[in-house]
Amino acid sequence: MTRTVLESKTKTVVIGFDEPFCVIGERINPTGRKKLAAELELGDFTTVERDALEQVACGARVLDINSGAVFSNKMAEDPRYADNNFVEPPLMAELVARVQAVTDAPLCIDSSVPAALEAGLAAAEGRPLVNSVTGEEERLERVLPLVKKYNVPVVAISNDDTGISEDPDVRFEVARKIVQRAADFGIPAHDIVVDPLVMPVGAMATAGRQVFTLVSRLRTELGVNTTCGASNISFGLPERHGINAAFLPMAIGAGMTSAIMNPVRAQEMAAIRAANLLMDHDANGADWIRLARVIEAMKEGASFAEASAAASSAGRGRRRARG
Amino acid sequence: MTRTVLESKTKTVVIGFDEPFCVIGERINPTGRKKLAAELELGDFTTVERDALEQVACGARVLDINSGAVFSNKMAEDPRYADNNFVEPPLMAELVARVQAVTDAPLCIDSSVPAALEAGLAAAEGRPLVNSVTGEEERLERVLPLVKKYNVPVVAISNDDTGISEDPDVRFEVARKIVQRAADFGIPAHDIVVDPLVMPVGAMATAGRQVFTLVSRLRTELGVNTTCGASNISFGLPERHGINAAFLPMAIGAGMTSAIMNPVRAQEMAAIRAANLLMDHDANGADWIRLARVIEAMKEGASFAEASAAASSAGRGRRRARG
Repeated sequence: MTRTVLESKTKTVVIGFDEPFCVIGERINPTGRKKLAAELELGDFTTVERDALEQVACGARVLDINSGAVFSNKMAEDPRYADNNFVEPPLMAELVARVQAVTDAPLCIDSSVPAALEAGLAAAEGRPLVNSVTGEEERLERVLPLVKKYNVPVVAISNDDTGISEDPDVRFEVARKIVQRAADFGIPAHDIVVDPLVMPVGAMATAGRQVFTLVSRLRTELGVNTTCGASNISFGLPERHGINAAFLPMAIGAGMTSAIMNPVRAQEMAAIRAANLLMDHDANGADWIRLARVIEAMKEGASFAEASAAASSAGRGRRRARG
Repeated sequence: MTRTVLESKTKTVVIGFDEPFCVIGERINPTGRKKLAAELELGDFTTVERDALEQVACGARVLDINSGAVFSNKMAEDPRYADNNFVEPPLMAELVARVQAVTDAPLCIDSSVPAALEAGLAAAEGRPLVNSVTGEEERLERVLPLVKKYNVPVVAISNDDTGISEDPDVRFEVARKIVQRAADFGIPAHDIVVDPLVMPVGAMATAGRQVFTLVSRLRTELGVNTTCGASNISFGLPERHGINAAFLPMAIGAGMTSAIMNPVRAQEMAAIRAANLLMDHDANGADWIRLARVIEAMKEGASFAEASAAASSAGRGRRRARG
């Protein structure tokens, strides 16, 4: 059975067919968060550190670290800041160091800038995941050598120089090409985590079925683990969390083994915990019973993050008491 | 593609591989509801009528009618009431007549007493579903002739004279036997809706996986529609609705086409509507958008039943206005 092994300095997380679904927390990402970008520009990492702790408490097993910040004020003073090749590598190294200092979760080094990926890989302790390579020639030639050099696993997104195909068979062939090219570099299939690309079901009615079929084929034909940007499925529709909370169990049932998502959402995280239980990936229902206590605490007014943090520190207390 | 056609006097509902998931409302059942049984003993059908309307408003497409009442007071006066063969047939006929008078949903005639099934079949207009036959010899010999005589579809539960097997392969073979015996009576496979039997995942860790595998095999190898008592999966565990709400989309993804369940529950019904959308069984997302309005109304304090009833009468108003 395929196992993709991720490590921090002290902790191992396995993405695999026989493992609980691996939630990769997406929140440390200044791309869509102007306020966070402004904080980072001022050298303020308090939100990053809080988000790291909160996501882990809520159930993220891996933390994505994206360095895609635009530093508008610095750019006005120094034109070099207009270039992400200048901004991202030192920022990524700093983000990795800050997050490693507060949590023991393995990291996912996420950038469109290869030099930022390398800076993150150099700064990360253990065995982080690289996010990402695509089927684009230039990207393959830049990222796969890094993946080989650092002996790390990589997310492979199934688009190429022709863009993102709406035909799932074409996306499957892009994934196959990436797996083959990685093999040429000596990178094994179990270190490739394919993102088959999730389209919004509001724009393409077959988007859900496409993903379920692709995940199943990727697993049986290529033997690879899979991931996705889960919330994309509900883009543009009302009550998005309800759609996400059905999509995730269905994707898990089809064989998906991880997702890059916001773990600070009770509805989606409950759906994933229930799916783990139903896939027989939650021994004695222990995780489900812990979540049920969190939901109970939420009925008393606590937020999901607060109740999760309280439950996980109580858990640590109990373990210490026993030890 | 397999289609099981159910009819009331005026309405057709199809259970099928290319249809939205068919929710069969379970609430009209005095077996576990002492208060309802007491009302029925007094000839009071107001709860039955209200439950019929409420379940349909919430999204039930078929209504299960179970006549398994115990009439304790009458039994004390007249020992014949201790015999369900005496109590159920006239009660079933009355329940069917009452429900037909207030809704146009097709019915599911549900009793362990063959004479009650026949009384229900005689009273029902259209083409109801019979619930149920099993692989037990006596039951096959009593129920299949009725199914043939009335030309109706039937729920086939995969236990036999040896009981309920924990081995899913044995349950599959029981289903196959029922389909074959039905064929001997001239009943086609598309009129058999197999219940593969859902075990509680709290008692049997593989219960979820068993169902997903069985549903897929029943569909591909026997070509039959499937159903289940959905809430059984979460028996004995906390936060049951969260487990049910992940189980249903996963079962739908595996190919399940109906369930006998309580439709007056927002969490489970939202999960089913989202799954329909993700299976491309909700043209233009119309059902999802309607549900989103119901959820909005619930945020203002309405119950799911109230908000659903308001939305469905608004829908009827709009259709009339257009017509």
